Amino acid sequence: MPDATKHILLMDGPDSKGLIYHVTGVLYRHNLNIIHNDEYVSPSGHFFMRTEFEGTFESDALLTELNSTLPNAEGITFRLNPKRKKNIVVMVTKEHHCLGELLIRYAFDELDADILAVVSNYNVLQPLVSKFGIPFHYVSHEGRSREEHEEAILRTLAIYEPEYLVLAKYMRVLTPDFVNNFPNRIVNIHHSFLPAFVGANPYRQAYERGVKIIGATAHFVNNDLDEGPIIAQNVQEVDHRHTAADMATKGKDVEKIVLSQALKLVFSDRVFISGNRAIVL
Amino acid sequence: MPDATKHILLMDGPDSKGLIYHVTGVLYRHNLNIIHNDEYVSPSGHFFMRTEFEGTFESDALLTELNSTLPNAEGITFRLNPKRKKNIVVMVTKEHHCLGELLIRYAFDELDADILAVVSNYNVLQPLVSKFGIPFHYVSHEGRSREEHEEAILRTLAIYEPEYLVLAKYMRVLTPDFVNNFPNRIVNIHHSFLPAFVGANPYRQAYERGVKIIGATAHFVNNDLDEGPIIAQNVQEVDHRHTAADMATKGKDVEKIVLSQALKLVFSDRVFISGNRAIVL
Amino acid sequence: MPDATKHILLMDGPDSKGLIYHVTGVLYRHNLNIIHNDEYVSPSGHFFMRTEFEGTFESDALLTELNSTLPNAEGITFRLNPKRKKNIVVMVTKEHHCLGELLIRYAFDELDADILAVVSNYNVLQPLVSKFGIPFHYVSHEGRSREEHEEAILRTLAIYEPEYLVLAKYMRVLTPDFVNNFPNRIVNIHHSFLPAFVGANPYRQAYERGVKIIGATAHFVNNDLDEGPIIAQNVQEVDHRHTAADMATKGKDVEKIVLSQALKLVFSDRVFISGNRAIVL
Amino acid sequence: MPDATKHILLMDGPDSKGLIYHVTGVLYRHNLNIIHNDEYVSPSGHFFMRTEFEGTFESDALLTELNSTLPNAEGITFRLNPKRKKNIVVMVTKEHHCLGELLIRYAFDELDADILAVVSNYNVLQPLVSKFGIPFHYVSHEGRSREEHEEAILRTLAIYEPEYLVLAKYMRVLTPDFVNNFPNRIVNIHHSFLPAFVGANPYRQAYERGVKIIGATAHFVNNDLDEGPIIAQNVQEVDHRHTAADMATKGKDVEKIVLSQALKLVFSDRVFISGNRAIVL
Repeated sequence: MPDATKHILLMDGPDSKGLIYHVTGVLYRHNLNIIHNDEYVSPSGHFFMRTEFEGTFESDALLTELNSTLPNAEGITFRLNPKRKKNIVVMVTKEHHCLGELLIRYAFDELDADILAVVSNYNVLQPLVSKFGIPFHYVSHEGRSREEHEEAILRTLAIYEPEYLVLAKYMRVLTPDFVNNFPNRIVNIHHSFLPAFVGANPYRQAYERGVKIIGATAHFVNNDLDEGPIIAQNVQEVDHRHTAADMATKGKDVEKIVLSQALKLVFSDRVFISGNRAIVL
Repeated sequence: MPDATKHILLMDGPDSKGLIYHVTGVLYRHNLNIIHNDEYVSPSGHFFMRTEFEGTFESDALLTELNSTLPNAEGITFRLNPKRKKNIVVMVTKEHHCLGELLIRYAFDELDADILAVVSNYNVLQPLVSKFGIPFHYVSHEGRSREEHEEAILRTLAIYEPEYLVLAKYMRVLTPDFVNNFPNRIVNIHHSFLPAFVGANPYRQAYERGVKIIGATAHFVNNDLDEGPIIAQNVQEVDHRHTAADMATKGKDVEKIVLSQALKLVFSDRVFISGNRAIVL
Repeated sequence: MPDATKHILLMDGPDSKGLIYHVTGVLYRHNLNIIHNDEYVSPSGHFFMRTEFEGTFESDALLTELNSTLPNAEGITFRLNPKRKKNIVVMVTKEHHCLGELLIRYAFDELDADILAVVSNYNVLQPLVSKFGIPFHYVSHEGRSREEHEEAILRTLAIYEPEYLVLAKYMRVLTPDFVNNFPNRIVNIHHSFLPAFVGANPYRQAYERGVKIIGATAHFVNNDLDEGPIIAQNVQEVDHRHTAADMATKGKDVEKIVLSQALKLVFSDRVFISGNRAIVL
Repeated sequence: MPDATKHILLMDGPDSKGLIYHVTGVLYRHNLNIIHNDEYVSPSGHFFMRTEFEGTFESDALLTELNSTLPNAEGITFRLNPKRKKNIVVMVTKEHHCLGELLIRYAFDELDADILAVVSNYNVLQPLVSKFGIPFHYVSHEGRSREEHEEAILRTLAIYEPEYLVLAKYMRVLTPDFVNNFPNRIVNIHHSFLPAFVGANPYRQAYERGVKIIGATAHFVNNDLDEGPIIAQNVQEVDHRHTAADMATKGKDVEKIVLSQALKLVFSDRVFISGNRAIVL
């Protein structure tokens, strides 16, 4: 079945001579037009390429030819995605600033994603979500073990089968078991300039250390809450007059913008994961 | 005569299908290894590509094959540069901050260029230049018409045949006749965030307008002093407590860093010029 | 009638010896506690002071004593404001990003202001506003002269008697007659780093000039749309790959944050206006 | 003996009502003119004030009156400094970028300090220092215990009796015994955005963590090399294409500017130290 829209080809694997030549040759012979092409070779010799192209083709045939065209295709991975919106679920606790940002963007079709539902361990953000006509699932952790709580969340998520989970200030640590359900598919916003101030109360820590700049970090969640490949970071100046609360207020503006910018990169298939690093092409 | 080091291939022209494929194919058949490859297609359909590669080859043969390999080579330009330091002359007036920055970098081999000489219409910076053992040419404009002054400068420059002229706070306007001697080869640092505050005394203008951010702009000089493609810009926050003099002091830090960063881009053959825009690959 | 909460004393006038001493003396004798005190003396010798204090006092008596305590009070102005939320009306055209930001902040009591109503010359943002239960007034300019349109807006505003008008991407030029109704009480967000790119389509202008940084400016409106004292500015990096549309998208994030930050300063009585400059204490 | 130039009064202690009033009253009665006055009260109730003033007075008498004028002077400290350049010694290891910056600024009288000497545990920077006619002391650590080495440095420093030591990329840890000789008088530049990447090779650590922003921190040295009150910080964007070496190159620009800006604050008596925080007025 031929596709007619824009597509994105993601390729990565061990670097060798002629990779760009061979891959662009396949597209050329299929009469496909490259709109953007970006490559990166890591210092350890791993090759990454993102090719955005347009034209009509048959997916399976194209992938087969890509795999067979390389003199040495061992370890090379190809992924071929239509350029389209992703399906996501947003998880929150009590803070509204990141969620509000995502809802406004979604309402005006600026998110490159459809928000299928919002899941929270508190119900305080239900009124905000309901303004936008999106399902809100209140899954309290009260009286449940961590495992029971995560099971309940997973049952809710199973309804929606999201491609990505966005932790928009979800303030509970997720277990590795939970995270393993969504490998490289959970994006978190952390309220510090990681790796500074890992853990709880980063603005309190920042105040006590007397820093002159605060920041926020959007990253994939793999093992624990503050690790995982960093997608985007940004910062804002503060001074000694800022209390920890002032820093938190100012930091929220950074958090929501950084999260939105990271999601834009992820949802447009620009982010490769390589060990603990994110390659953004 | 074969070359043995790293090289940079610059290509630009009308976009068409297969450009990347055909060019990388030539390099592949010559057994040359691509280290970095960056392309850009402008909204108007102009294709730019910078390919950094290594290996041994014969320049003329490679260029001939590149030109003949394209189905439609009309309007396509290839340039093939060895990766090496550029020869430059720096022009200054009285301010030392940009010149000092360049001299320190040059003294420690961080400039990607050799400073052949410094030319100035005043002699106040001669002591600084002499510390670094570089020829200093004092070419006063006193008692000379603009044309006579520029003629005198051109005679001095003819000794050195620089590839680039760097205007490191050279505060006189150059005539089109002078500029035409160095097409796309003069880099200027302007002490404002262009196009804000074109012309004289930009910090005074910035103070009077009450701006909250000041900046600096490194750009090619083509027609007049404050126009030409922008290579790099940066900014710094100010507030109402900054006098025009304070802004100038703070701005100098931005100016010298922006100029250095722009020169790094230019000297590594990363900058294409397209009309009044600089494409930095 | 005694007040019991926090207050802000704003003072400005010609500088002379002892101003701080005399004013803080009055507060000391009234047993009022200074929380923050900020002063600024301009290069031309104008003194500005903002004193935030707490305690119980009688306003008229305090102001009388302040005026009589200075050896030379000529030209000195005192303003005494309780620390409280301002009443505002927001004016918009079709773009939602700044309005959405203000609505979310207002919904969670983070705006330091009450949004009494939203007025627009189009009705496209009515659905967004209605989510938040705020009156929306659609005052079309179709079939009306500029004066008739502004008259209609003024009639609507008369219902609410706002202390401040916020132009959150209101894209029509206001006449001096209109502006004179709200001296120093209209805040506009301009989608460029003023004074660069005054006028229409600043992102198109920025693209064509090939700038490497774009910005936004929040300012008071006095005479025409792009002049007036600048309250806050911020910027974001771009490169040649950004089309004018990409710059606009990226710029919107800057615009909404800059507008919010400027409003926070204005609504907390931190901004003095001095000619065409804003003094932010 | 009366002084005739500008002076700076630094005051700090427990907050109480009337502090500004009483202190400015003393200056008023002495007919001294306040140029700038800045205060800050910490959340824990500690009051800081920096008063820059001009006029003629007798120092001892002024300090006596200041101490006696307060209803409760217990715990209040006054310091009265003439506004003048500081005497400093710069310590370096092998990297030139911060030292070069300081030397150029010093050569053009922009440092607010006199560099009495440069001390290094290597001799590689001697040629640079000698260009500027400043004594260079090579005090090798080879074949010496840490204590012996520090003793040798202290003997050298004793010649100059500097008011401040500037560690401009001095790469050895100083012992508490050494540091105790210069309480709150040692300024260090650390090549990371502290507290991220404490310790050795921060750019290597930053690369491996895949951060998108790097930074530098200027701080007082109290106990160990990477702690102590932070005076200034700044950052620069990086991406996955930056190797650890690229990050170091880019970071050096930030380091030297941050160090210079921090020194400007310290040398103009703007920095109070409060526990582990720097209050910059």
